Amino acid sequence: MPMTSVNLYSDNVAPAAPEIMAALARVNSGPAQPYGQDTETKAMKIAFSDLFGKEVWVMPVSTGTAANAIALSALTPPFGTIFCSDKAHIETSECGATELFSGGAKLTKVPSTSGRISAEELDEVIRKAGRGLQHRSQPAAVNLTIGTERGTVYPVSEIARIAEVARKHALHFHIDGARMANALVAMGTSVRSVTTDLGVDVLSFGATKNGTLNTDAIVVFRKETAEELGYRLRRAGQVWSKMRYSAAQLNAYIEDGLWLRLAKQANTVARRLAEGLGQVPGVRLIDSVEMNLLFVEMPEKVIVGLERDGIGLGRRDEGVRMVTAWCTTTEEVDHVVGRALIHAGSARSTD
Amino acid sequence: MPMTSVNLYSDNVAPAAPEIMAALARVNSGPAQPYGQDTETKAMKIAFSDLFGKEVWVMPVSTGTAANAIALSALTPPFGTIFCSDKAHIETSECGATELFSGGAKLTKVPSTSGRISAEELDEVIRKAGRGLQHRSQPAAVNLTIGTERGTVYPVSEIARIAEVARKHALHFHIDGARMANALVAMGTSVRSVTTDLGVDVLSFGATKNGTLNTDAIVVFRKETAEELGYRLRRAGQVWSKMRYSAAQLNAYIEDGLWLRLAKQANTVARRLAEGLGQVPGVRLIDSVEMNLLFVEMPEKVIVGLERDGIGLGRRDEGVRMVTAWCTTTEEVDHVVGRALIHAGSARSTD
Amino acid sequence: MPMTSVNLYSDNVAPAAPEIMAALARVNSGPAQPYGQDTETKAMKIAFSDLFGKEVWVMPVSTGTAANAIALSALTPPFGTIFCSDKAHIETSECGATELFSGGAKLTKVPSTSGRISAEELDEVIRKAGRGLQHRSQPAAVNLTIGTERGTVYPVSEIARIAEVARKHALHFHIDGARMANALVAMGTSVRSVTTDLGVDVLSFGATKNGTLNTDAIVVFRKETAEELGYRLRRAGQVWSKMRYSAAQLNAYIEDGLWLRLAKQANTVARRLAEGLGQVPGVRLIDSVEMNLLFVEMPEKVIVGLERDGIGLGRRDEGVRMVTAWCTTTEEVDHVVGRALIHAGSARSTD
Amino acid sequence: MPMTSVNLYSDNVAPAAPEIMAALARVNSGPAQPYGQDTETKAMKIAFSDLFGKEVWVMPVSTGTAANAIALSALTPPFGTIFCSDKAHIETSECGATELFSGGAKLTKVPSTSGRISAEELDEVIRKAGRGLQHRSQPAAVNLTIGTERGTVYPVSEIARIAEVARKHALHFHIDGARMANALVAMGTSVRSVTTDLGVDVLSFGATKNGTLNTDAIVVFRKETAEELGYRLRRAGQVWSKMRYSAAQLNAYIEDGLWLRLAKQANTVARRLAEGLGQVPGVRLIDSVEMNLLFVEMPEKVIVGLERDGIGLGRRDEGVRMVTAWCTTTEEVDHVVGRALIHAGSARSTD
Repeated sequence: MPMTSVNLYSDNVAPAAPEIMAALARVNSGPAQPYGQDTETKAMKIAFSDLFGKEVWVMPVSTGTAANAIALSALTPPFGTIFCSDKAHIETSECGATELFSGGAKLTKVPSTSGRISAEELDEVIRKAGRGLQHRSQPAAVNLTIGTERGTVYPVSEIARIAEVARKHALHFHIDGARMANALVAMGTSVRSVTTDLGVDVLSFGATKNGTLNTDAIVVFRKETAEELGYRLRRAGQVWSKMRYSAAQLNAYIEDGLWLRLAKQANTVARRLAEGLGQVPGVRLIDSVEMNLLFVEMPEKVIVGLERDGIGLGRRDEGVRMVTAWCTTTEEVDHVVGRALIHAGSARSTD
Repeated sequence: MPMTSVNLYSDNVAPAAPEIMAALARVNSGPAQPYGQDTETKAMKIAFSDLFGKEVWVMPVSTGTAANAIALSALTPPFGTIFCSDKAHIETSECGATELFSGGAKLTKVPSTSGRISAEELDEVIRKAGRGLQHRSQPAAVNLTIGTERGTVYPVSEIARIAEVARKHALHFHIDGARMANALVAMGTSVRSVTTDLGVDVLSFGATKNGTLNTDAIVVFRKETAEELGYRLRRAGQVWSKMRYSAAQLNAYIEDGLWLRLAKQANTVARRLAEGLGQVPGVRLIDSVEMNLLFVEMPEKVIVGLERDGIGLGRRDEGVRMVTAWCTTTEEVDHVVGRALIHAGSARSTD
Repeated sequence: MPMTSVNLYSDNVAPAAPEIMAALARVNSGPAQPYGQDTETKAMKIAFSDLFGKEVWVMPVSTGTAANAIALSALTPPFGTIFCSDKAHIETSECGATELFSGGAKLTKVPSTSGRISAEELDEVIRKAGRGLQHRSQPAAVNLTIGTERGTVYPVSEIARIAEVARKHALHFHIDGARMANALVAMGTSVRSVTTDLGVDVLSFGATKNGTLNTDAIVVFRKETAEELGYRLRRAGQVWSKMRYSAAQLNAYIEDGLWLRLAKQANTVARRLAEGLGQVPGVRLIDSVEMNLLFVEMPEKVIVGLERDGIGLGRRDEGVRMVTAWCTTTEEVDHVVGRALIHAGSARSTD
Repeated sequence: MPMTSVNLYSDNVAPAAPEIMAALARVNSGPAQPYGQDTETKAMKIAFSDLFGKEVWVMPVSTGTAANAIALSALTPPFGTIFCSDKAHIETSECGATELFSGGAKLTKVPSTSGRISAEELDEVIRKAGRGLQHRSQPAAVNLTIGTERGTVYPVSEIARIAEVARKHALHFHIDGARMANALVAMGTSVRSVTTDLGVDVLSFGATKNGTLNTDAIVVFRKETAEELGYRLRRAGQVWSKMRYSAAQLNAYIEDGLWLRLAKQANTVARRLAEGLGQVPGVRLIDSVEMNLLFVEMPEKVIVGLERDGIGLGRRDEGVRMVTAWCTTTEEVDHVVGRALIHAGSARSTD
């Protein structure tokens, strides 16, 4: 039977993990106080504080865009500017959300290579940004996506250098953790090493792409910022009355390392897929595959062939994008490689 | 066994209805395209268009505040003003969300009685608002909560008159349907009669308070407004990538009239509770109980007694607020009345 | 010769005072550094600091609305609320400017009598505003127009009590000084007594209505606020490159008490006008005339008669408004009274 | 006597032209209705409509930044993007004003050469901007500075091609005319040829740099946009009550071609300065000098020498900037060249 439903269009095509669904059922047994005054939400604060090794404030939001833009709005004045990669999601893919919630702050782009910026270039861009000049939006914060939009990750040491540049210029530091778990697994490091230990102010904690149903979160490392964000989230329409359903998802997500296990599966099959596609004539990996994203140059006939097979993939300016998820299986990626070989003409179809 | 968990603090303390939970499980079986390109979301558009008797655009959002404020942002210029009741949720309880998303529009309050405004007073306030005067925010839209914040509803004929006033002044018309189902059941009318038939532009379709898990929706009656709202929602961080989980909740919510059945139960027990409390010495109903909200004047000893019983209720400036939900039972409200009688001294505890 | 050009429509119909025109000519002799780096602007800071008895920062702006709204934007977060009179200019007459520059803050109205609020009512409104409640815009600042929109002024002691209420609630304090000079003359007090001495954060220093050509100013009492306002003004398009022309107007305006002399003339003739009109049958002063504004109830035939005489006055919901200015003469007001007497039928025209 | 006060730091260091000062005196003779209801402002509409060859609406503003940002706010939705040169003043030098007034729209940069963009590159950038993609800010308007920030101008034919690209993509077209007069003189064309004839929506009509005292203007070519801008300007605090003082400046500015005569003088001496500096060893003109701006590479000793001479110039990342103005004389630029030759060592000081 052909696996016609293999979908590598994005990791957000995946369903919710069974543990997440079970958590929803668990908290659905009776009434609970609204707006986070319930026990599940209170447990979430404790669980995340334990995970990060210090007191943190956790604010569930419905999307990663909400997490990024609202978090950043507490880190910049309206006349500020936020430094980010020229490939950053906040710059390319959020329809101006940061500009909306910040009241008109600017994004200043730092050139990237394979999705990564360097501490040196960041430093130079900040130095030229015109701090103190009345005509210029004022340097306010650095945004960094640690598992980049190009599927690459940073060495921990480079993230530390970037944090150091932010600190040197007295800028806030925000992490876009859209694929946090995949990045951590790829980097082989702990979540604390790239957040708590580096003095991060706020983290957009991505979860939807990696197994939750409809919840991401803002994790805040400073009390005053958390208080401000409480009001900013409320007026953004991002405070669920039935908060327990988000809290339950997030609690289940980090319990016993579920999030890292889910990400590990996605990363593992992505590597296998990359190796397999590497054998297909005419196919070239554009960036190194370090997490669960592949950007691939492919002959048009192979692309069309895979599309006809019903395999989901993304045509992009930068090539074909394929994304594995927590539920992608070895069989599925092998199937994709097998079909690609056939379409490339180096294998015979056995159908 | 005492029912210690009776919670009338709000209808948002209720869990999700079983049909909603089943719908989530149903759509969790495999991958699906993101951002509303899935079959569940496409089915939602058809189901709602059928419900409203014309083509509508349905945009799930995480909260009613998001629904109200983002909907209104498409109905007013930033230099506009929106007319609403002085008790309107957008004015009193959304932390300035409408002001945020509209880019600084104003709300102009119309005096209310028992939560209701009148078409006449609305007309007068609009006439004095200074249309065409450069110094004044310009009349743009009317906002009406048909199941009011005080638990009352409008005669359909009065809503029609209010719609007529809006039309006469060339203003957009927005319905806040936070407790839409409860209001419709109380009014004994159809959803079309107070929306489609009156030329409503946008409806905030409340669902969370009445049985969904974490989803409300914006229902749009005009294509251009829907197109604009697509971008406004995206930059508000209100477009779920895994849209099917919201669509599934909303589909189940309206399927076979579930939403009206759920609301009917809440309204029925609210009336029973009102009648019961009416027999308790010293207790007085402040407004008439027309849906599922009660505002009650109570002796302090009764309030304290109920609180000690573990019964959830809300102390407010306007008196004690009690709200029944889809899951509130006859036994629960009878228990509350019984305890109130005991605390008032007119019955002996049998515990 | 009839004085057909008597214009009491507003004090902003008046030309610029000769001293102001002379100052413009004085600074027009050659090149000067832009954006406030010129000697005239530097002298302004010194002159105003001397006037206020402490270091202040002075920022010329083109209008009083700009002064109010931009000043307030530095005193409230976007999720804040500003307490003001229900007759406040920022609420009734600035087309939502404060909402724009603050990023969507709200104005909370305090009931007024004859344009004045009381410290007690302000305190009560603040206490009910919901500090700490996530659903409510958070108390941020108090706005007070010391020479009110109704032509009345406050006792200094009442302003001190209002300042004390603001301080007690940890709110910023902003003075709208649209008719600052007229109010000070009426109150018989110094500018310091109602600003510096009361811990005012920012003052909108009105000048255009009282003799300058096209310049008002923001006066800031705290350095950090001044720094922030530098950027806020720049992005508001309110920083003149040729700053010296504003600075020169403002320097001339306060030099040797010119502003107070100009205001004294306006107030003196207003009182004379009020006394004269008080003798006209059917004419009634609505509020007491304490500065240079009169609100008058008049028979329609008198109003029409004066209008036919070419005398400028303002028909308002609250009655006929007449405003004297620095250049209004005794002869002019006597002429108006004389004509009113004729139109009322108690004098015979001698024309 | 050395001309120590030669100031080429910017054209905004210049005083106001005598004709402008005379106009102020002219309108200062008596009272006039406020907020543009005066005869001078009414005459301005007629004069400008005559100049542009069709009915236009003229709205004086205090600065060019206000003109640009507020004009653009009426040409883009908050979720829109505006295409502009990467050297555009709105991008580099207005502290995020466009982002503020538009409610968070984005600027999309088009690469420039010597300050100029090309129609072809503009077209390509627009095509890649993601029209219709929900994740992207939507194409809304093109901004073009016809006398560029680098001192260059466009061929009229190229401006026409750029207008055609805007029209093809259904985008609004905004001209930043900061140095409009200088550009027109340099291009040898009429103002209509680059505005009315090309279907421009709104023009920022710069005047301050070329002889007015403190007024620029927005010129609007469509009635609905003008009506909207009326409210936007009011809430921006950009509507002077004593409007006649701005109108008088603008009327005098365009009367009998004054503005073009003033600009011609600035351009003429700039060319003379360029030719003179071209003879100084070690000095190189970076861009061609087409209007009244020079960007010059100079040996440090020459820069320091000129600075010590008290000659105003601007050190910039791109080299030394010198700007002539309407009042710069032949003697002054000859003096600068003479001193530069001495500092370069090729002439002997005669002091």
